[in-house]
Amino acid sequence: MSLLIVGTVAFDELITPFGESGRIMGGSATYAGLAASNFMNDIQLVSIIGEDFPEEYMDRFHKRQIDTRGIRVVEGGKTFFWKGKYHNDMNTRDSLDTQLNVLAEFDPVLPEAYRNTEFLMLGNLTPAVQMKVLDQMETRPKLVVLDTMNFWMDNSWDELMEVLKKVDVLTINDEEARQLSGEYSLVKAAKKIATMGPKYLIIKKGEHGALLFGEGEIFFAPALPLEEVFDPTGAGDTFAGGFIGFLAHSRDIDFENMKRAVIYGSALASFCVEKFGVQRINQITREEMHQRVQEFVSLTQFEVTLQD
Amino acid sequence: MSLLIVGTVAFDELITPFGESGRIMGGSATYAGLAASNFMNDIQLVSIIGEDFPEEYMDRFHKRQIDTRGIRVVEGGKTFFWKGKYHNDMNTRDSLDTQLNVLAEFDPVLPEAYRNTEFLMLGNLTPAVQMKVLDQMETRPKLVVLDTMNFWMDNSWDELMEVLKKVDVLTINDEEARQLSGEYSLVKAAKKIATMGPKYLIIKKGEHGALLFGEGEIFFAPALPLEEVFDPTGAGDTFAGGFIGFLAHSRDIDFENMKRAVIYGSALASFCVEKFGVQRINQITREEMHQRVQEFVSLTQFEVTLQD
Repeated sequence: MSLLIVGTVAFDELITPFGESGRIMGGSATYAGLAASNFMNDIQLVSIIGEDFPEEYMDRFHKRQIDTRGIRVVEGGKTFFWKGKYHNDMNTRDSLDTQLNVLAEFDPVLPEAYRNTEFLMLGNLTPAVQMKVLDQMETRPKLVVLDTMNFWMDNSWDELMEVLKKVDVLTINDEEARQLSGEYSLVKAAKKIATMGPKYLIIKKGEHGALLFGEGEIFFAPALPLEEVFDPTGAGDTFAGGFIGFLAHSRDIDFENMKRAVIYGSALASFCVEKFGVQRINQITREEMHQRVQEFVSLTQFEVTLQD
Repeated sequence: MSLLIVGTVAFDELITPFGESGRIMGGSATYAGLAASNFMNDIQLVSIIGEDFPEEYMDRFHKRQIDTRGIRVVEGGKTFFWKGKYHNDMNTRDSLDTQLNVLAEFDPVLPEAYRNTEFLMLGNLTPAVQMKVLDQMETRPKLVVLDTMNFWMDNSWDELMEVLKKVDVLTINDEEARQLSGEYSLVKAAKKIATMGPKYLIIKKGEHGALLFGEGEIFFAPALPLEEVFDPTGAGDTFAGGFIGFLAHSRDIDFENMKRAVIYGSALASFCVEKFGVQRINQITREEMHQRVQEFVSLTQFEVTLQD
């Protein structure tokens, strides 16, 4: 059970109706890695940072036994930075500042030890970079999960189509699924996207839950209804990291187990939004996790009989 | 097991991206009554129509053993008419024409035989009319379900507050729940609305499913993901009619049974949108219903163990 996660390790600065975070730890690989570390130890991160990235943040990875040999530190470089402000509904946000910095020169080289990893998560990055990672794998992973976004559909369509052919699970949101497929109906969109390569598709609908399509079946997990969403940043990456972390830990990629993985991913995402940044997903106890999953059970499970 | 449904019986004219319906049978009591008739026979409708309402449409009620003695026919009057056009996403629509006609003089008088009915559904009408119905009940029903909308929150707040005190289940959509409570979080909204009277709250989120709040618990049912939504008109009333019809048939208003009722209501709503108007909910076989409910089972049910 080994898991390789490629994505951003970054600084975020967040403004929500509840307050301002200041400069904190962020990035897709950060959220996905820390989320997955709730299930397993042997996680390898591949990313790029500048010299300004604090040792204290790196220690957060090490405390979770996350292997950071794949994180390149650029001498004199500055770490990718994003600043955003959430509107009152917490569902929409404005980007106030984006500084690519060292991310502009991200050209991942996998350490030898990472090239036979069984589970691979390709975070939202340019499709060419995602392909470069796949090309360096010596053994085809048991499962490849890829995240992408509308920006790459607009700007790197051909490269995206190439990399999609090589992945097993695609995770995107509902608008992206519609854009990628040209279909409004998510059921039709899923059928079309399946012809592009991924055998499984997860459509993330934020507060409206997530749909898993595959093997001719559909599974739906709601988002947990919460009194308060404090900071939605990273919820999608946390979900994806929880999903693949659960699968990698159990080494079972059966559809039934994927359903469970979707529930565990949703549970982790529901913790994520309770505090700023990675604060909450870094302090979940086993008991809290089980209790949260039980909340999903009581939220969704029912019994019917043919007598009804 | 008796069920009284008060609401509109009307003409609709619908324009969707798939075509135009022409003038067809519509109205909240129509959809709710026909939906409920999939579970039981003893359904009483209270509404008002004009002389222009075709005998053929009335026969659709009688074929389902629905008692129409409570539908007042106004001599020389014209039936309530609504014309609407759906946008391409099928989630938003424009009202093109609304003719209240006889509905403006709706002052329901319950036939003697209706005054001890056990289950009561008050469709979306002015709160004063809903109250008038409640006042005529000789025995307090076992369960009162009330539907309302933002228009009455804007225009009849005090009357709405009065009638809410007297109902058990309120069904509204998410925007209406937010307006009624002044809370954006649906969990907080539900808590606030519980203090207004209804012990149970159903928040209908259309394609995003429905939430049932009550007894300190939350249950969620997704909408069935469909290849095509042909006509969403009446889906909410069909859901509500299915919900109360299932409960009235089983005579069990336990929270566990309410969960089932939400699933059956959602199943009926998923049929409703497949064709124009009431066409589809009027031709559901028992086998189709069970098959549809099984689709909800496979869509939502999963198994977790403490070993995960």
